[in-house]
Amino acid sequence: MDKRPLDALNKSKGKNVYVILKNGREITGKLQALDIHLNMWLEDAEITFEDKKTTFGDLLVRGDSVVIASPSNQ
Amino acid sequence: MDKRPLDALNKSKGKNVYVILKNGREITGKLQALDIHLNMWLEDAEITFEDKKTTFGDLLVRGDSVVIASPSNQ
Amino acid sequence: MDKRPLDALNKSKGKNVYVILKNGREITGKLQALDIHLNMWLEDAEITFEDKKTTFGDLLVRGDSVVIASPSNQ
Amino acid sequence: MDKRPLDALNKSKGKNVYVILKNGREITGKLQALDIHLNMWLEDAEITFEDKKTTFGDLLVRGDSVVIASPSNQ
Amino acid sequence: MDKRPLDALNKSKGKNVYVILKNGREITGKLQALDIHLNMWLEDAEITFEDKKTTFGDLLVRGDSVVIASPSNQ
Amino acid sequence: MDKRPLDALNKSKGKNVYVILKNGREITGKLQALDIHLNMWLEDAEITFEDKKTTFGDLLVRGDSVVIASPSNQ
Amino acid sequence: MDKRPLDALNKSKGKNVYVILKNGREITGKLQALDIHLNMWLEDAEITFEDKKTTFGDLLVRGDSVVIASPSNQ
Repeated sequence: MDKRPLDALNKSKGKNVYVILKNGREITGKLQALDIHLNMWLEDAEITFEDKKTTFGDLLVRGDSVVIASPSNQ
Repeated sequence: MDKRPLDALNKSKGKNVYVILKNGREITGKLQALDIHLNMWLEDAEITFEDKKTTFGDLLVRGDSVVIASPSNQ
Repeated sequence: MDKRPLDALNKSKGKNVYVILKNGREITGKLQALDIHLNMWLEDAEITFEDKKTTFGDLLVRGDSVVIASPSNQ
Repeated sequence: MDKRPLDALNKSKGKNVYVILKNGREITGKLQALDIHLNMWLEDAEITFEDKKTTFGDLLVRGDSVVIASPSNQ
Repeated sequence: MDKRPLDALNKSKGKNVYVILKNGREITGKLQALDIHLNMWLEDAEITFEDKKTTFGDLLVRGDSVVIASPSNQ
Repeated sequence: MDKRPLDALNKSKGKNVYVILKNGREITGKLQALDIHLNMWLEDAEITFEDKKTTFGDLLVRGDSVVIASPSNQ
Repeated sequence: MDKRPLDALNKSKGKNVYVILKNGREITGKLQALDIHLNMWLEDAEITFEDKKTTFGDLLVRGDSVVIASPSNQ
């Protein structure tokens, strides 16, 4: 198991990512930091939940809440 | 993974943060302390839950309950 | 991360605290002991759940069930 | 954090305790053994669930299911 | 905390136990093996769930699913 | 606690097992590999969920999702 | 327990896998990386949820959310 999934996501640092949380919230933002628990620090982030959007200059996403994450610049 | 997400949040110490918990509760308060489990100690905190607001001089938020956290002074 | 959130709560030892649990139960009582898992030992405690109050001379609260805790003498 | 919450409960060994579990079950019984995970071994135990009572000569309660526990001889 | 709850249950090895799982399933069977996670290996086991009974020659019960366990020969 | 529950299940390697998952899914398949987390690798597996059957040549079952497992050749 | 379940899945690296998540989401994609927590990095991935399909060039799936995973080229 040479290449690691979190290292792959970490290559998106400085780029936009799209994240789905356990409770259905969807988040986009520029990935600034990532740790081994999948905690993320995002810049210019937006949370979409039940058709309502909220924006944040900086946002910590708790890794425990994350279901999937994807580089969104594709 | 040089920069760490929790260190980024920790820079908001002394400033207001906005937190969403797993059960939908929303909390604002001045961040006084933070540990690696994302436990937080907030001052002048307010919990909003189902349109009801409750204020607390000091409040411990259990990290395990946190979904996202953001510096709210922006 | 010099100051720790649990140390801050621990300063309320001997004083009343207010606790919300994951299932919506609310508890008040005098904090007698606290450990790093946020397990608490309360004296003269009262649980409020669905408008019903139950009192306990001594009460162990399992940390894993705690959402927030606050010194209630304010 | 000198005194520990589980040590306080452990002093009720040989006496009756009252326990609430995550799923709403309520249990009473004489505390015979306790470990750091809050697993308990009770004697002459009774489970109350949805108005139905079941009695057990000996009962292991898994700590992970426990919400609160209290010495009930008060 | 000299005597341990799991050791107490382990004394029922070779005898019947009754187990309630988190999802409401009830299990009886002869306890053959037990580990510190409360994983159990039962012989001649029977699962009761929503009034339906299923029998198993051998059955592994995952400890994480267990709420309570009791020696049932009483 | 000499004999271990997972070792007992491991003796079914090469034979069919029956597994119930937390969400009610039922799985049968030939056990090819098992680890201490109860992760399993099954061959010629079939998942039954809400009366729908799906077959898989090879299947990894995450141990965390497992409620019970049984050798099904009995 | 010589052969390990995750090693078996790891042999599908470079090939398509099919994954079911706890919340019912189904995912297909080419497995690029896998770690011991069952975190996966997929290429050309597609999530199906409530009859809606979404495609991703690259996708991190959090292992904690995984129920089953299978090589889908069979």
